[in-house]
Amino acid sequence: MKQLSGFEPVAHSSLGLVTTSRITFKGDNYILELESGDTLSPVTVAYETYGRLSRNKDNAILVCHALTGDAHAAGHHTGEPGEKPGWWDLLIGPGKPLDTDRYFIICSNFLGGCKGTTGPTEINPATGKPYGLHFPFYTVKDMVKVQKWLVDYLDIEKLLAVIGGSLGGMQVLQWTISYPEVVAGALPIATTARMSPQAIAFNEVARQAIMSDPQWNFGLYEPDSQPASGLALARMIGHITYLSEEAMLKKFSRRFINGKNRGYRFEADFQVESYLHHQGSTFVNRFDANTYLYITRAMDYFDLHADYGSLKKAFSGCKSSFLVISFTSDWLFPEVCSQELVRALRMAGKNVSYCNMDSDQGHDAFLLPGNRMGEVVSGFLTRVQNEF
Amino acid sequence: MKQLSGFEPVAHSSLGLVTTSRITFKGDNYILELESGDTLSPVTVAYETYGRLSRNKDNAILVCHALTGDAHAAGHHTGEPGEKPGWWDLLIGPGKPLDTDRYFIICSNFLGGCKGTTGPTEINPATGKPYGLHFPFYTVKDMVKVQKWLVDYLDIEKLLAVIGGSLGGMQVLQWTISYPEVVAGALPIATTARMSPQAIAFNEVARQAIMSDPQWNFGLYEPDSQPASGLALARMIGHITYLSEEAMLKKFSRRFINGKNRGYRFEADFQVESYLHHQGSTFVNRFDANTYLYITRAMDYFDLHADYGSLKKAFSGCKSSFLVISFTSDWLFPEVCSQELVRALRMAGKNVSYCNMDSDQGHDAFLLPGNRMGEVVSGFLTRVQNEF
Repeated sequence: MKQLSGFEPVAHSSLGLVTTSRITFKGDNYILELESGDTLSPVTVAYETYGRLSRNKDNAILVCHALTGDAHAAGHHTGEPGEKPGWWDLLIGPGKPLDTDRYFIICSNFLGGCKGTTGPTEINPATGKPYGLHFPFYTVKDMVKVQKWLVDYLDIEKLLAVIGGSLGGMQVLQWTISYPEVVAGALPIATTARMSPQAIAFNEVARQAIMSDPQWNFGLYEPDSQPASGLALARMIGHITYLSEEAMLKKFSRRFINGKNRGYRFEADFQVESYLHHQGSTFVNRFDANTYLYITRAMDYFDLHADYGSLKKAFSGCKSSFLVISFTSDWLFPEVCSQELVRALRMAGKNVSYCNMDSDQGHDAFLLPGNRMGEVVSGFLTRVQNEF
Repeated sequence: MKQLSGFEPVAHSSLGLVTTSRITFKGDNYILELESGDTLSPVTVAYETYGRLSRNKDNAILVCHALTGDAHAAGHHTGEPGEKPGWWDLLIGPGKPLDTDRYFIICSNFLGGCKGTTGPTEINPATGKPYGLHFPFYTVKDMVKVQKWLVDYLDIEKLLAVIGGSLGGMQVLQWTISYPEVVAGALPIATTARMSPQAIAFNEVARQAIMSDPQWNFGLYEPDSQPASGLALARMIGHITYLSEEAMLKKFSRRFINGKNRGYRFEADFQVESYLHHQGSTFVNRFDANTYLYITRAMDYFDLHADYGSLKKAFSGCKSSFLVISFTSDWLFPEVCSQELVRALRMAGKNVSYCNMDSDQGHDAFLLPGNRMGEVVSGFLTRVQNEF
């Protein structure tokens, strides 16, 4: 039955205990001008760092998280037995591809998140209440702007690398365009230069699930009475797109919960249903519904083609070396999306390597063991460091 | 803006006016024994016929509809200007592939539907109220059993062909297994021998959308106060799986509703969102939420491999000639599902032709113009008729 929970056995992180820091950017120098035309101030950023910044400050790597991630990318917060380590502990730690013995790793909760950085769940200083739907719309470009404030605050002039998967990969791409001098190596993983109408459609159904839940109440719910069924449904929809058909077949096939026989019921009868229910209900305890609306909208609006006239033009000013990674069974951001990136980068005369990883794990492969992404990342970082 | 409605321009049917008939099967000879172990009686079936049954009764073709279809497959009910013809008018009519000058076409609303055949919306004679969730669970095999009653009632011993797409194709497959002597030609289109866990997952999210809507009220809603938002959401999810990525790109690309600019809002901002909303809201006016739960469950439970030990064994007693058709861009029941059928039929030594139609229209291709399915169907029917 272990399989039903959808979790790998909880691993112990070799990184040990870590803590989340918060820095608040306020005052006239920190009025965040958003793409929408709105402004936001002050802005607090939650972040974690692992490893030590070198004397020359030439070993810093920024990790960008995906839709439901946070600043806690690796290590443990409490060290209690069974506590899950950060979301990319697989990749980050001593001797791992993002080697904390060599590199200084930074990960922050992005602008508009619900894990410590200013977002819809945080208090609006103008009203003393959570922002909720009064939070301004923000874009991937806006997220990256705030990350740049953090990098400046940490007194780092140039990042050895920026790395991230999915929405994290969009941030990586935007970094190389917004701050070309600051990024030596860029690793956009399982991502795309623009959201497809199909991906927008899935996001829209997820949002409708949230907004159709009467508990949503036009965004005016109390933190302890979230639109739980709508948010769970949104997560279930998302999860289908994160897995592949092959992964589902391997994980669940058509197995029933109760042995061999059909239950003739509308309650969960297949293991795949039980898995989705579990994913949905646990998500509600760790994520905020309004925030889900905003982040998915930021993804929908991501379109480097439209923003810069063409993808080649978008990358024309880039100075980074690129390692683009896709996964063969990813159908949310399929390999053609990465191949389009690679083509545009090559047309723009940039230094780009591409790796299409063989995997049956779907979009989520970048978060999972069982593929050789780590080795490729590790080799690329060594090269970039040699050329730094 | 025409594109936004999602409809092709409404065509006039050359078949003219048609009517739906109803026949009630009652009495001791018509106690329907369901796979679940439950029984149901009486059973009313809504059906339409087009063309004339030949003196030798050798020209009858049974059409099986998909999830949200009905008995009204072709022609007009009122003849009022702008009235949409039946759902497969493209294929059925004088001179068309299912040529009403040559063939006698039968289409019935399947058991458990909400379009005139006994189902959750019909009155339960035991209570005088609609069955609702007291309706027994039924399977594809049960649907086919009731269709056989209808064929017997029409005094047809052997069908020239049984044809249908998607869930309709599952009924076709079941017909050849349940009544091997009765089916000369079988045309399973865009279908599968068993639902994949991914397809079950989409169905489950759709059901959860319905059952999470407070208006659903455990199935006890009044006909005029359906769980509209839940049912609309279910339809939106379905529609994503009926289209292909390519079809969505062609139809909507990333176009905004209001010209070039982002609206920075959660209301529909992209054309693809507006399309889905339209599909969702119009569906609520023509379909019943409880019925949607039952039908999707019947699909989930469809598994010829499990029912008969193997697919080869399932088909071992078949006497029909098969034409299996798939569409290259169908990702709900992808071409591999049809190829698996073809392989099993060949291993079982059956007469089978296979056509993988080049199409960018996704699963819905079998309902749409723009591919050459009609020609292939037409040629196959002529051959089967010659050998009848």
